[in-house]
This record gives sequence, structure tokens and C-alpha cells, in this order.
Amino acid sequence: MTVGTSGFSIAGYPKAVPTALARRAEKGERIKITLITGASVGDEIDGQLARAGVIARRYPYQSNKSMRDLINDNEIAYVDMHLSQVPFFIKNGYFGKIDVAVIEAIGIDEQGNIIPSTSIGCSNTLVEYAEKVIVEVNMWQPVKLEGIHDVYSPGRIKQTEMIPVVLPNNRVGMPYIRCSPDKIAAVVITEIPDGTASLAKTDENSQKMADYLIKFIEDEVAAGRLPRDLPPIQSGVGNVANAVLGGFQKSNFRNLTVYSEVLQDAVLDLIETERVAFASGTALTLSPERIDEFYKALDMFKHKLFLRPVEISCSPEVVRRLGLIAINTAIEVDLAGNVNSTHIGGDRIMNGIGGSGDFARNAALPVFTTPSTAKNGTISCIVPHVSHVDHTEHDAHVIITEYGLADLRCKTAYERAELLIENCAHPRFRPALREFVARQYAKKGHRHGFAPEDLILWQQAVDEINAAESAPAKPAKAKKKKS
Amino acid sequence: MTVGTSGFSIAGYPKAVPTALARRAEKGERIKITLITGASVGDEIDGQLARAGVIARRYPYQSNKSMRDLINDNEIAYVDMHLSQVPFFIKNGYFGKIDVAVIEAIGIDEQGNIIPSTSIGCSNTLVEYAEKVIVEVNMWQPVKLEGIHDVYSPGRIKQTEMIPVVLPNNRVGMPYIRCSPDKIAAVVITEIPDGTASLAKTDENSQKMADYLIKFIEDEVAAGRLPRDLPPIQSGVGNVANAVLGGFQKSNFRNLTVYSEVLQDAVLDLIETERVAFASGTALTLSPERIDEFYKALDMFKHKLFLRPVEISCSPEVVRRLGLIAINTAIEVDLAGNVNSTHIGGDRIMNGIGGSGDFARNAALPVFTTPSTAKNGTISCIVPHVSHVDHTEHDAHVIITEYGLADLRCKTAYERAELLIENCAHPRFRPALREFVARQYAKKGHRHGFAPEDLILWQQAVDEINAAESAPAKPAKAKKKKS
Repeated sequence: MTVGTSGFSIAGYPKAVPTALARRAEKGERIKITLITGASVGDEIDGQLARAGVIARRYPYQSNKSMRDLINDNEIAYVDMHLSQVPFFIKNGYFGKIDVAVIEAIGIDEQGNIIPSTSIGCSNTLVEYAEKVIVEVNMWQPVKLEGIHDVYSPGRIKQTEMIPVVLPNNRVGMPYIRCSPDKIAAVVITEIPDGTASLAKTDENSQKMADYLIKFIEDEVAAGRLPRDLPPIQSGVGNVANAVLGGFQKSNFRNLTVYSEVLQDAVLDLIETERVAFASGTALTLSPERIDEFYKALDMFKHKLFLRPVEISCSPEVVRRLGLIAINTAIEVDLAGNVNSTHIGGDRIMNGIGGSGDFARNAALPVFTTPSTAKNGTISCIVPHVSHVDHTEHDAHVIITEYGLADLRCKTAYERAELLIENCAHPRFRPALREFVARQYAKKGHRHGFAPEDLILWQQAVDEINAAESAPAKPAKAKKKKS
Repeated sequence: MTVGTSGFSIAGYPKAVPTALARRAEKGERIKITLITGASVGDEIDGQLARAGVIARRYPYQSNKSMRDLINDNEIAYVDMHLSQVPFFIKNGYFGKIDVAVIEAIGIDEQGNIIPSTSIGCSNTLVEYAEKVIVEVNMWQPVKLEGIHDVYSPGRIKQTEMIPVVLPNNRVGMPYIRCSPDKIAAVVITEIPDGTASLAKTDENSQKMADYLIKFIEDEVAAGRLPRDLPPIQSGVGNVANAVLGGFQKSNFRNLTVYSEVLQDAVLDLIETERVAFASGTALTLSPERIDEFYKALDMFKHKLFLRPVEISCSPEVVRRLGLIAINTAIEVDLAGNVNSTHIGGDRIMNGIGGSGDFARNAALPVFTTPSTAKNGTISCIVPHVSHVDHTEHDAHVIITEYGLADLRCKTAYERAELLIENCAHPRFRPALREFVARQYAKKGHRHGFAPEDLILWQQAVDEINAAESAPAKPAKAKKKKS
């Protein structure tokens, strides 16, 4: 069976039905499904069901440890996708028939209209194309959320509609998902919170990256390359993304808008302090600490937020038109500006590309942030070649680490390498990176190449740096610092 | 000085002014410019001026041998760009001030309105933002071309217009480029043909690829994943692209439309036989053999063609909306479906990414074609890892070689590898590719990794295959064939 569920960034996914299904599988029943969601869902689905052996194939995104391990052991077939394309794939039949859609809602009326909860993702398309629909009405989600949804969806190939969003706050659709009542197979009542995680306190590195970003944007405004009333801002998901976006709190920008995928805590903070006038996303992923406060102040927030289907929130059409400042996170960046945001070591998936490809390719100003090192400083996040390319050198205009910012626009490959090494790389890796570039430059060619022997030399250099720093020579350095 | 010129795919570029500039430089005058064009231009610019040492920096595309060699020797700074973004970069000041625009035209009126010739590219934006404009009125280009241009351009950040193209034949702009007369620094009269090249006869491999494509599209229609009246078709540039598009000649499809970047000979053939009802592009790049015929039949063609600015012909907004079938050419494809379409050996640029990134990311059906081998069969074009990623695995839905077609949609990395090896790779390289995959699979991980030692093993396997085939064992094989 092919099952589609609501859920995006651990918000608004069904909880009771997948739990019941996992129980059946744990008792020995053989159940195998292909699972399609908007994006990541909670442990009730990607954890429980994966561990119970229920999930055979998984589209288009995940962020769960159990799921990830099973994917990397090749036990679950996983296809990472641009999230804006999932509804398109459903509509045009690329996934085949969708047997059941399981949708979390805050309500359903007698016409079958479903009011979604904290996310939309591809729920509306799943409901439209699935043979049967199961609705989980979650009493934990406040009914007052009604009205924040704006459900609009273009047709199949070859529709010719323009998506009429020209400002983040344009209402273009309906506040619910239309569904024929005879498709509804069951309505299940639940009262289970979204499994969102707490956010870490903003660390020093994220703060520095936020400062570089704000300074850069201010300089762009001063140079006339951006208007003072900035275009809408998109921000990726996670601690660092939340912290970097939070940097606007200290800026002089007012009346900002957000046109993003996932609205995290920082967006609400910025609305409260009147930095942000309106925010549009496809999921509300708030920390458990923030969500109660949000629900209490819902009357105020309600008129300043929209949740839309992912094909609209990540729509290349709308992203290009609005001229977004798109801020996403990288795992590693190479000397030409190619970005890896999904894989560790080239072969093990972390989460997935999400909507970052839709944003980075089409935004006015695609920015990627990453700490300069990983694994306690032993790995450089600025590398000769990324082990997997999610965003090509054409799609990353600005790279920011805690050491600084590299503006890659209008720069050649070797100019980029220099900027990334001198502005962004951790100082301990700079000499080895410079050496790599010098060796390549001597060989001629428009850019540094891909010879395996050079990659081995680079790996050896990294090993030597790490060995030297853990050797007895270290105390000498510490002494220096004290003097 | 920063100089922008008209010209796209060796069509509609100025010829007399750059030739005069090259003469001055050859006589010893020190002239250095940054050059921005729509795309590739003729030898008068990218050849002559490059060889004369006039060009210091070059954006955003080229296809000239002299230019390419100087770029790869790091004598000319070159930045390869998504072509849809060039007008955007100009408008928002990313390139800095544009001093002069040199534009080929078929005419200019007393209000300063410029009627472009065989391409638009970013000419309209250059005219709008340059301090001075030089117009080359080319008498070789027939005045009757007037009317095929549709000049529309969205504003700077943050404009909020929808680009109103919902069908390829929608006229949305003006038939000329508006220019204030006091910006016109000079008008030069010339009579020099575009330097377009002859097209090779369709070879057997291209014919096979065309057949696989048509068969695949017919199957998609039969399966209900494409409508019988297909969405518009985009086709890349060059012999193979022209031949593959020409494959529609033998198909049963009628009333097709083309929404592309460059209109080559095959488009005219398809219009003549009434396969194609309307074609929209940004350049008319016809072989010298075809262009005279075209001009003779211009009255008929005129109502079936538009030339638009590149930001419209390659617009992510329009490409996504129209749901294009986008057919582009690859240099090599890797086992996960990543495509290299710009670099040889990872470090030497061929031409550039052109508009292919705008199309492949946003089209409904992005297809890449490549012969299975290069260099007389000694190099496999299906490889473990491409030496440069232009299109990620998310942006290539279908790969076609003369051996067959791989439909990569909804497939995991290892499923893709199997399809690409068994359907697309040349049989002589299949065992080595299978071995590479088996070795990787044994290591676990969601996909094959990037370990340099494995890349070396692959290179050794290729060398062994080539050595074996050129060794004395060969006659035995030939004997076998005869028997």
C-alpha cells in the first residue's frame, strides 16, 4: 500500500493511527507500506513504524534517528526530493496510486472539509488524490488555529494558472482542505502533542554568523543592491537557522516579512517585537516551551501568519518573483562554492535536501551558514570538494561561518577559493587549503580539479593537523595564550 | 570598463565595433574590459578580442575555442552563470556600473527604440542600465524580422509582478527595446552575417536517443502521466540536441509548442511540417544553410515565433508554470543521476551551464541525453562520480544514451545505479561499473561514497578495459564477429 500522511517538520502529523499500525506489526502481522509525507514527521511514524519494519519505501524527507539508520543500512528505500515537487509528483501519478491519506486536523465539517493543524505540506494533494482518507482530529491542537490556513493548489500538467501570490500575506485559497465526504474512511479523535524538540540557546558561533549576515544586508542596502524595505526572508530549519534568523532582532530593520517553509520560535519573537509584520510558511514548528505561549496569544498572531501547501511555500515561481533572501544551513562547502547539506562522508544521509533547493536556486540572495569545523574541530567544513553536491556553485551567493562571510557573486572559482579560505575557513585548516589550491593552480585549468591523489593529499594534511594538535606540543600553545 | 553586448548562441551579436576595438588593441593600445553578453557570441568578440588581450573578465557563457583556452590558462577570469539570472544581476547592481552596451539591431527609430536582430538575451536590460549605447544596424539581417520580438522585463528587487506568460504564444511586451535617444552614443551600419555553424547530419546515436525519447513520452501519455497535447518542449543547443528534437518529426504528436532558449533548424522543420504550432525562444541560431530559406519564408514563420529576453525564456516562474519537457545534453552522468554538462576532467571548462539549470530544476520532465562513451569509446560517460556537478540527482528525471533510457523518478541511489548501468552504459564498461557498485554496497550507506581509493580503482579498471581492447587479443574478437 502507498500511504500518505500529513506532517511537516515534526508538526501536524497523525499520531494515533500509525501507533496502532505499529502495534499490529509488533504482534507479528506482516505490513509493508510506501510512505509519503510533506517532510519530517514524529517518532510515532518515522520511528515506531520504521523500527516495526512497516516502512519499505520512504519519500521525500526524514529526520528521525531510527529511520536514518535503517536507510543507511539499506533496509528502507529512501528517495530524497525537492519538497516543492512532491505534490506535483502525486498529481501526475509518478508515485502511482495513493491508497490512503492519514491527515491530522483540528476539525472536519459535514461537507468533509478538513481544517489542518500545525502544517499543510502536501496534505491537500494527498486528500485530493488518495482513494480513502482517515482524519485524526487532535484535540490538543486549539480549534482557534482555524483561519491561518490558505489552501491553494495549481492543477496537473498542463495547467496554465499563475500562482497569484505577489506578497507573503496574499490570501489566494481556502481556509480548509476540500474533501468529498464519501472518501472519509474514518475519523479518529486524539489528544497528543506534536513531538517537536526544544531549541538550544543561541551559541556564540550562531550569534557571530547572525551578526555577519545583518552587517552584509545593511551594506547591500547602503550600496543600493537591496531596498531598505527588504524582500521577504526565508530561513532553514534547526537551532542554527533559528538563531541566525533571530539576529534580525538586534537589527534596525522593521516591517519585515517571512516567506518560508518552517516557522520556528524566532519568527514569533520577531512578530512580537514588530520586526516582522507577516510570516508565511507550511509548518509551525515551535519548541514545547514556545507553543503554549503561542496558543495563549493566538488572537494576536493569527492575523500575522499563513500556513500554505508546500508547493506554494517553496514554489520556484513565487520564490523568484518575491526575490527572497534565503538563508539555509550547510554541512560542508567546497572551494568553488558547492554546498553539501544532506550527506556525511558522501554515502550516509542525514535528513534530506528539503525545500532548500527550491529556495537557493530561485531566491534573489541565497545564503548558506555553517560552523567552520565539525566533530570538535577535527573536520573542516570548508573542503576542496564536497562529498555530495546539493547546491551547485551557482546557487550559493554568500557563505557565512563564525570566522566571516564570503560574497561569491561574480567571482571565478579561484577567487571564490581565496575568499572562502581567508574569510570562512578555520585558521588551523587555512594553510592546508592554501596548499591544495596552489598545487591545483599550478596545473592550470579554470578551477581546481578532482584528481583522487589530490584528495588523498588533503586527507593526509587534515590527519597531520589533528595529530599535531593532540600531540604534546599543545601545552606550549596554551602557554602562549596566557602570556 | 564594463561592456555589455547583445548576442546569444552566436546570433544577433555586434560585429563591427568589436572588430575595430580588436584592431586598436593589436596596434598596441592597452584596452581591458569586463564583458557581459546574453550567452555565446561570434569569433568577432570571443575570438578576436580575447586573442588581442582585450577581455579581462567574462560573464556568463562562451563557446569559443580561443576564449576557452585563455580561460583554462587562467588568462581570462570567467564566471559561468545561470543565464536567467544575468538580467537580474545587472538590474540589482551585482556587476557594478555598465559603461557601454553594444547592441545589434535591424533598426532604430527617432524615439531611440531599438529593434533587435536574431536574439534578445539580456540586450534590453543592458540598454536600460548602461550609461551609453552603441547600436550596430546590420543590413544583412532582414528588416522583416520586426514583430517577432516580445520584450518584457520585470523590475528590480522587490518588484511584485507576475510574468503573464501562461502559453508560449502570449505576447506580453513590446516589439522593440525602449531606449532614451540621448543615451545613444553611436549608430554603426554593418552587413555581416551571424557566425553560426553548419549542423552535422543526424548520426545513428542521436537517432536512437530521439527514438527512446519519443517512445518514453508516448508511454507517459498512455499511462496518463502526460496529456496527449503535450506541454511545451525545451531543447538544448548543438548537433545532438537539434537531432533529438528532430525526432518529433517522426512522431504522431501534433500542435506541439516550443518554449526554449535557442531555436535551431529542427524547430523550423517542425513548424513547416505542422508538428509545432508555435515556438518561443531568446535566439534564432540557424545554420548558414537554413537561414536563407528561413528568411525567404519569413512571412509564414513570423506568426509562429517569438524571441523574448532570456529572463523570460529561461524564467523559473514560467518554466515551472508551463510544465516543460526539458531536453538537455550532458557530458557525463554519474550513478546517482548527477549531471556534468560543463567541465572536462573537472578542471577545464567547455562552454557553461547556460539556461539548462533554470530548465532542469523547474521543468515537469527534465531529460538529459549523452552518448554512452566519449573519445572514440575510451571514456565512459556513465561514471561513478561526475567530475563536476551542474545538475544534481534531483534535477535529472530521465537519462538517455544510444543504449537506452533510465527513468530515475522515485528511485533510490542504488536503483538509479542499476538502471543507468543496465540501460544506458556502454556494455564494455558495465562489468567495471557493476563491480564499483557492489564494492560500495558492501560498505553500507544509503548510496555509493566518494573514497579516493575507489575512484582510483575505477580509473584502473577503465585503463585495463582500454588496454585489453587495443591489445593483440582484438583480432580474436573480430574473427568471432565474422563467424
